[in-house]
Amino acid sequence: RKRVEIYQYIVLKWTLALLIGLLTGFVGFFNNIAVENIAGFKLLLTSNLMLHQKHFQAFAVFAGSNMILATCAAALCAFIAPAAAGSGIPEVKAYLNGVDAHSILAPSTLFVKIFGSIFGVSAGFVVGKEGPMVHTGSCIANLLGQGGSRKYHLTWKCLRYFKNDRDRRDLITCGAAAGVAAAFRAPVGGVLFALEEAASWWRSALLWRTFFTTAVVAVVLRTLIQVCRSDICGLFGQGGLIMFDVNSTIPAYNTPDLLAVILIGVLGGLLGSLYNYLVDKVLRTYTIINEYAHSPLPDFYQSIWKGPAFKILLVITISLLTSCCAYGLPWFAQCIPCPTGSEEKCPTQGHAGNYKIFQCQPGHYNDLASLFLNTNDDAIRNLFSSKNINEFRISSLVIFFIGIYSLGIITYGIAVPSGLFIPVILAGSSYGRLVGRLLGSLSSGLDVGLFSLLGAASFLGGTMRMTVSLCVILLELTDNLLMLPLMMLVLLISKSVADSFNKGVYDQIVKMKGLPYMESHAEPYMRHLVAGDVCSGPLITFSSVEKVGNILHALQMTRHNGFPVIDEPPFVDAPELCGLVLRSHLLVLLKGKKFTKNRELFGSEILRIFHAFDFAKAGSGKGLKVEDLELSEEEMEMYVDLHPITNASPYTVVETMSLAKAAVLFRELGLRHLCVVPKTPGRPPIVGILTRHDFMPEHVLGLYPQFISHNYS
Amino acid sequence: RKRVEIYQYIVLKWTLALLIGLLTGFVGFFNNIAVENIAGFKLLLTSNLMLHQKHFQAFAVFAGSNMILATCAAALCAFIAPAAAGSGIPEVKAYLNGVDAHSILAPSTLFVKIFGSIFGVSAGFVVGKEGPMVHTGSCIANLLGQGGSRKYHLTWKCLRYFKNDRDRRDLITCGAAAGVAAAFRAPVGGVLFALEEAASWWRSALLWRTFFTTAVVAVVLRTLIQVCRSDICGLFGQGGLIMFDVNSTIPAYNTPDLLAVILIGVLGGLLGSLYNYLVDKVLRTYTIINEYAHSPLPDFYQSIWKGPAFKILLVITISLLTSCCAYGLPWFAQCIPCPTGSEEKCPTQGHAGNYKIFQCQPGHYNDLASLFLNTNDDAIRNLFSSKNINEFRISSLVIFFIGIYSLGIITYGIAVPSGLFIPVILAGSSYGRLVGRLLGSLSSGLDVGLFSLLGAASFLGGTMRMTVSLCVILLELTDNLLMLPLMMLVLLISKSVADSFNKGVYDQIVKMKGLPYMESHAEPYMRHLVAGDVCSGPLITFSSVEKVGNILHALQMTRHNGFPVIDEPPFVDAPELCGLVLRSHLLVLLKGKKFTKNRELFGSEILRIFHAFDFAKAGSGKGLKVEDLELSEEEMEMYVDLHPITNASPYTVVETMSLAKAAVLFRELGLRHLCVVPKTPGRPPIVGILTRHDFMPEHVLGLYPQFISHNYS
Repeated sequence: RKRVEIYQYIVLKWTLALLIGLLTGFVGFFNNIAVENIAGFKLLLTSNLMLHQKHFQAFAVFAGSNMILATCAAALCAFIAPAAAGSGIPEVKAYLNGVDAHSILAPSTLFVKIFGSIFGVSAGFVVGKEGPMVHTGSCIANLLGQGGSRKYHLTWKCLRYFKNDRDRRDLITCGAAAGVAAAFRAPVGGVLFALEEAASWWRSALLWRTFFTTAVVAVVLRTLIQVCRSDICGLFGQGGLIMFDVNSTIPAYNTPDLLAVILIGVLGGLLGSLYNYLVDKVLRTYTIINEYAHSPLPDFYQSIWKGPAFKILLVITISLLTSCCAYGLPWFAQCIPCPTGSEEKCPTQGHAGNYKIFQCQPGHYNDLASLFLNTNDDAIRNLFSSKNINEFRISSLVIFFIGIYSLGIITYGIAVPSGLFIPVILAGSSYGRLVGRLLGSLSSGLDVGLFSLLGAASFLGGTMRMTVSLCVILLELTDNLLMLPLMMLVLLISKSVADSFNKGVYDQIVKMKGLPYMESHAEPYMRHLVAGDVCSGPLITFSSVEKVGNILHALQMTRHNGFPVIDEPPFVDAPELCGLVLRSHLLVLLKGKKFTKNRELFGSEILRIFHAFDFAKAGSGKGLKVEDLELSEEEMEMYVDLHPITNASPYTVVETMSLAKAAVLFRELGLRHLCVVPKTPGRPPIVGILTRHDFMPEHVLGLYPQFISHNYS
Repeated sequence: RKRVEIYQYIVLKWTLALLIGLLTGFVGFFNNIAVENIAGFKLLLTSNLMLHQKHFQAFAVFAGSNMILATCAAALCAFIAPAAAGSGIPEVKAYLNGVDAHSILAPSTLFVKIFGSIFGVSAGFVVGKEGPMVHTGSCIANLLGQGGSRKYHLTWKCLRYFKNDRDRRDLITCGAAAGVAAAFRAPVGGVLFALEEAASWWRSALLWRTFFTTAVVAVVLRTLIQVCRSDICGLFGQGGLIMFDVNSTIPAYNTPDLLAVILIGVLGGLLGSLYNYLVDKVLRTYTIINEYAHSPLPDFYQSIWKGPAFKILLVITISLLTSCCAYGLPWFAQCIPCPTGSEEKCPTQGHAGNYKIFQCQPGHYNDLASLFLNTNDDAIRNLFSSKNINEFRISSLVIFFIGIYSLGIITYGIAVPSGLFIPVILAGSSYGRLVGRLLGSLSSGLDVGLFSLLGAASFLGGTMRMTVSLCVILLELTDNLLMLPLMMLVLLISKSVADSFNKGVYDQIVKMKGLPYMESHAEPYMRHLVAGDVCSGPLITFSSVEKVGNILHALQMTRHNGFPVIDEPPFVDAPELCGLVLRSHLLVLLKGKKFTKNRELFGSEILRIFHAFDFAKAGSGKGLKVEDLELSEEEMEMYVDLHPITNASPYTVVETMSLAKAAVLFRELGLRHLCVVPKTPGRPPIVGILTRHDFMPEHVLGLYPQFISHNYS
């Protein structure tokens, strides 16, 4: 490349990082304002009706508005972009691992993710907007990297530099980090999240770029919040961007406290792995329901409608259930007299606040309503607060924990964008506070607010199995660095405990969705196999100057993305491996129709008519298709020289190389095709091609079922 | 491996991480106590003499004790372990990149690093104990991983699992992280430092393990500090473990503040790259002086003595110069009346404190003496303090900055363990405070303490070129999360500015020391070369059943570490590559003396007499040497079967593969040898072996000098 192109590339790289940060910051803020206003209005209406003793109307308004919002979210998801349902973090993780699943990062997904998330969270579901923010950030990054959507004629020429896997992956890593940063106002946490959970390949340069992106997000959020101080953002209040206010006194702890903390860690591990197990079961059930709804209908019109209709019905059911819990359960709680001498208003009248009056007399509050009839952010803030130790009774905490734990499990998997962070933090902090209340007599230094923070940490560690990034995110959320050692301890314990039962929730979902995720370590049984053992199928190879008809036939017959090219005698003495040619490049070449009558080398002519960027990787689902080619009978008989588009130095392994080593090579270098060459001379110069699917346990164990029972380790 | 061995391995892995954390924490604390007590006693003595107007005696005591301490440190370094001089971070970085330099992590280095660092810092040099702590942590990890030193008969059998490159590298990464955590009380910062600066390969599992190690360090330090609260640690006071107390009010800033911050960033970048440039020049000068001292002496006795003697002389010179600056420069400062209404005592009498009386009347203090005649930690704390804006006059800050900047440059490279963090933070925070004072009228929200923190950040970014880890370390040091966005901005600017001039200081030192460090990206000119172009030298290959004499001869004649093994006709039809055999394995095999008279396969018998762990990688400098072998004439004529020790699936590349791609493969997989195989059949089955040195720019550009001028990019 020329010098000026390098500069263009660098400037563009940083400009894109800046744009990703700016846009993600704006979207994150917009999300928050929208949710706060919609949910705030809903809650205000409900509590006003409650004040006038109109209990049934209040419930009708509450449940009705929840249901309308939920239906909106579900309709968006079901009809426009089914890929937008769920957290989105597993999909982003799989994409960064190299899985090019269609529509994961499409513009329609972005649109639905933003608005679906707003409606879903406002509808009072036990879901968060944090996972969807990560997905949103990645979608924004993808969209910018493609220079907008080609569908809507928004391409941008300079962006040709980013039409390759590596640069696109880098951008999307930045986007994921920006998403976390925007969701939690945690710039360092965002970088660490991208590093620990999202990215499969990491370079030092990327650390710096993601850091820049998240810094931009932090600045944007800060500026916007300052703008909002002047009451122009409607009901947007304290709850807007989560920043929990934990007691800022220095935590002093002694041995009983440490034991309590260890107890919380173990509990978090157990509850977390149970949560993962149940989420997996529920998700499988939902999938079966949806598939059943899809499958047996002969009528085309019906089958289109029935699938989405089932999904929406499921969402409405869960919405009703959630409304019933949120409105019904507080009736079981007795009214508590307001604490005297508190700085806060009690009971509160507005849409937020710690002390909800609900059905109580003036001067009293309903503690369970303060948790249930609030936005999730406010509920978490209440649980973390440490001003009034007896604010929540033990029975209320138990009811809330059970309610949230169950609702969280059945809510994930319905057709709305649903993050897992908030339900997990809610459940975790409620049992943390519970433990704090129960052991309050033993403990001296730690108060209930800190206990609930530790509970949240332990449950997060138990479900998501991240450590460093969770720790930093929680620190940035609560702005209390002195909790660090305790938080680390809790996270380590809960992760260790949970790891002995099952895998992290995101890994589970990736696996359940059948995405071919390459683990960073090779499976133990792979050490007993060699690369040649798993190469499958009849190999289709091309000669370096190949007949057009043969190529077209091969492209039509198979769905392979890479074909080996072999130099054959007139041009060389003996057949030898020339390299690897990609399907997409073949399609571009055939489209160009630069053929010759005879079998001869004319690569230089071909190079003249194509520009290097013609072969750049197209956006997802936007490349040429084999159906787009129109070739005459005469052209089919002609020859084309594949040398110019052949990657002449593909990575190769010898067929006797251990499969484990080949897997490490494949994974570490982020390959898509790995050529297997024969060990002994005198055979065809290539034995096969290994792709991602050949390394998947299902494939390998399908070929060699004896390894299933052996329990190799 | 068997199941029980896996468990042993896991338990051991975590036990070692725990031990590394514990030991590093203890050593870090011990270092601090020792320095605080020695330096405190020295300063107390000096200030007492000053109080009695005995100025010359005071100087004599001050300079004399400095010189004695400096001589001790230099003597330790020069005679026992020259590798302990300097920061140690570049060496650790090179080791983690795969450079097996002898003695970098030896037990003697550990000893000298600890005590040399204590003496050096106590001697009042402008050096830090942070870099040496990183090296100390890595040495501890290495020592534990080897199960103690074999020299002192402290090996431990279970540790055989860790006798390979990967596990050892993991341990040392943990050690480096623990070192940072112990030096700065920054557990998260330690993990990020290991990730961003130290390690060349990173796995997600490692993140968790380093995190555990640094958490242990944090807990140990916390416990020990609490123990010390009860005044049993002598003069160990506030200054012991750095934890700077920056103004904890929420920083509010506006546009002029932002401009000032950008100015600091740019300034930091410029000053930082100049610092790197000058440090490099000074280091090269010192190396020339030392080499000159070594070379021309015919007398053996003299040449042993002269080298170290020169080094010690240099240390004494610098020590005198430092003492003169520290004691002399404060005389230029005028006395300032003590501020009224301050909570702190003024002037202070003891060894620490903000307001040194020096030569002044009671009720006055000398601001320059508060900076110079203090431990470095206390000086930094003074600079960061924001209680009294006018505590330091502009002229004093200018003098201090110039003094520290120059002393820092000439001090690094002398024969004492010398960290770079503290000098850089000192210089950075002084010009940061200076900028804060000068722009004080414009600025509204930020006070001088925050400005000096930002100055320190910018200068750190400009010299060391880390971003995320520095940011987190500074946050953990100052315990003020709200500074994050400004800190990020400053770091990004200063790193960008400085990067356009030269490389980071650690990279520079690695390069200057001639360590073959593999960069993570391939050089641009490598794209124009193929793997076959740089394979050098006549290749020595062994037949798979080889004559003992030939092997011994090859081992004696060359210093290669890997030899290709070729299966040859009686055993196969045509010569083919069998694999790669390592020098160390060959030595063990020859030592075993399991030979046969005839050329035949008897690998299974060989396997019977050896245990797998006989071939495990020995500790640094402790493997068998070729001189240790004693073979008779008769044995030399016998044959040995190399199959059992041959790595039968080495990574290979075809000779026509682009050198850039081969470099990526080599680096990403952390290889030591890469076999180059021919493209066309009918030639010998291996063309050459690529090692780390073959990828070094010096080697490649030596072979193809035309690429030097081309300025490829």
